[in-house]
Amino acid sequence: MTINILFAAQPDSWAQYKEPLSAALQQTGLSYALRCDFAPSDVDYIVYAPNSAIQDFAPFTRLKAVMNLWAGVEGVVRNKSLTVPLTRMVDEDGLTQGMVEWVTGHVLRHHLGMDRHIVNPDHNWDHSPPPLSRDRPVSILGFGALGQACAAALLALGFPVTGWSRSAKAMDGVTTCGGADGLRQALSGAQIVVLLLPATAATENTLNAETLALLPRGAVIVNPGRGPLIDDDALLAALDTGQIAHATLDVFRIEPLPEHHRFWSHPGVTVTPHIASETRPDSASRVIAENIRRHVAGEGLLHLVDRSAGY
Amino acid sequence: MTINILFAAQPDSWAQYKEPLSAALQQTGLSYALRCDFAPSDVDYIVYAPNSAIQDFAPFTRLKAVMNLWAGVEGVVRNKSLTVPLTRMVDEDGLTQGMVEWVTGHVLRHHLGMDRHIVNPDHNWDHSPPPLSRDRPVSILGFGALGQACAAALLALGFPVTGWSRSAKAMDGVTTCGGADGLRQALSGAQIVVLLLPATAATENTLNAETLALLPRGAVIVNPGRGPLIDDDALLAALDTGQIAHATLDVFRIEPLPEHHRFWSHPGVTVTPHIASETRPDSASRVIAENIRRHVAGEGLLHLVDRSAGY
Repeated sequence: MTINILFAAQPDSWAQYKEPLSAALQQTGLSYALRCDFAPSDVDYIVYAPNSAIQDFAPFTRLKAVMNLWAGVEGVVRNKSLTVPLTRMVDEDGLTQGMVEWVTGHVLRHHLGMDRHIVNPDHNWDHSPPPLSRDRPVSILGFGALGQACAAALLALGFPVTGWSRSAKAMDGVTTCGGADGLRQALSGAQIVVLLLPATAATENTLNAETLALLPRGAVIVNPGRGPLIDDDALLAALDTGQIAHATLDVFRIEPLPEHHRFWSHPGVTVTPHIASETRPDSASRVIAENIRRHVAGEGLLHLVDRSAGY
Repeated sequence: MTINILFAAQPDSWAQYKEPLSAALQQTGLSYALRCDFAPSDVDYIVYAPNSAIQDFAPFTRLKAVMNLWAGVEGVVRNKSLTVPLTRMVDEDGLTQGMVEWVTGHVLRHHLGMDRHIVNPDHNWDHSPPPLSRDRPVSILGFGALGQACAAALLALGFPVTGWSRSAKAMDGVTTCGGADGLRQALSGAQIVVLLLPATAATENTLNAETLALLPRGAVIVNPGRGPLIDDDALLAALDTGQIAHATLDVFRIEPLPEHHRFWSHPGVTVTPHIASETRPDSASRVIAENIRRHVAGEGLLHLVDRSAGY
């Protein structure tokens, strides 16, 4: 029997995904139809982006599972009309690798103090080398697949890495911790903090006036995770006092970042336009096709979202 | 018998090295005296920086070997008054690690296109992610200890790496090549070129008008090696035409880079003040002490300079 797969995302996504997703589905050997326009009652699986026009899943009476195209699921996880399993994108080949490159690059940028050479109108020959990476502790808040992949890359370059998550996870060579005491530990020694937590009610404003004060003076914040992890006003205040030397932010509460936002003009902030981690159509399509194949074969779904935890 | 070790470098080096070098020598168990002011005929070993006041080694009649504090030996290797063995600094712990961090950081900076976010006065939200590292070939010219260490770090991050040296060297996962044909191969596919060759008559102007033209249009040059590896005028011309998109230069024919030099003002050039690789006193002292111990014990010297090759 033909499996009907609805692609529910913005039209530009369809243009990107139509070919690679068809190719990946053909590789599975399944008999399928992939379209943007099934009648809801005919749909077996939805390949989904939370900014899709579809926000009510109730009419999809034979729906078996929803495969989210994005790593972030906060735009769909609380949708009460969705009662079937939801998977998130864990695209090792594209999304994870892209994140590792962005995080490693910006950690090294701050570690090496590159900005004072990139922008040097006075032609200052300031011959003071940075410490070695071994003397630059980095803490990663959020220690799932992305956090651990970034930790591995930073470890390989010699940085001492601490990984904090809700429940502490073990990783060779990394100091791991969890809970409120663990957060104090992760922040108190970190010269660079990388935020890779999911956006949930529990993680909102993880960095606030109180937690920013736990960092050593002059620490650097790197946020490729989610905008709401940071209390924007508290961060700006900490930048103004010098408690925080710099923040490189890839994600924001509103995107694109509104023109009037102080992050644009503050000299201690670098704004990047949500490019740290991009799902690449080729590799993401293979992940989705494999998950549909697994579900049809009665195997467990990969990257299943825990709806109660919110990610 | 006491071994007399002369420290011959600038006074600020003595301030940095006095304690760690004494500590490292004590670890060897040798009976030694370390000073800046022996009579030449009493000196057994010289710990040497090429910018030292000592340029005539003839009066050092019982000299056994010279341990250069720097990786670069071009300031001493052609000194005809030096007839005893000369070693160069290979400080894995400090110099090599620092180079790996600087090279990896600047390769990632160019790969990710960071500069357009670091300097973004128009608040441009340009959401176009870079390719993954696997699609960004990097060639390293000069494939000794430093080049290979940088290659390992870039490989681990996913970059395809080609290593070129006078005589081709093998390294797992790296395309290696040598000679003139190899240079054409290394340049023709490289989007980023890292220069880590020694400064010799044979390597002068390795990047010139002809070889710069072999690169794909828009390639990036990263030079933490030596200034004379590049024909400055040819590089500026290639930057002006867009053949080369950017050059990040840490070393120059004259240092500090003179104020009037076009490298300071060219928008396609980033100047860093010879900080890519710094000998760190702690680890460098251990290397020197170990080499003196080896020589006293009749073991072979590490990091011996080939005077005919010039490095």
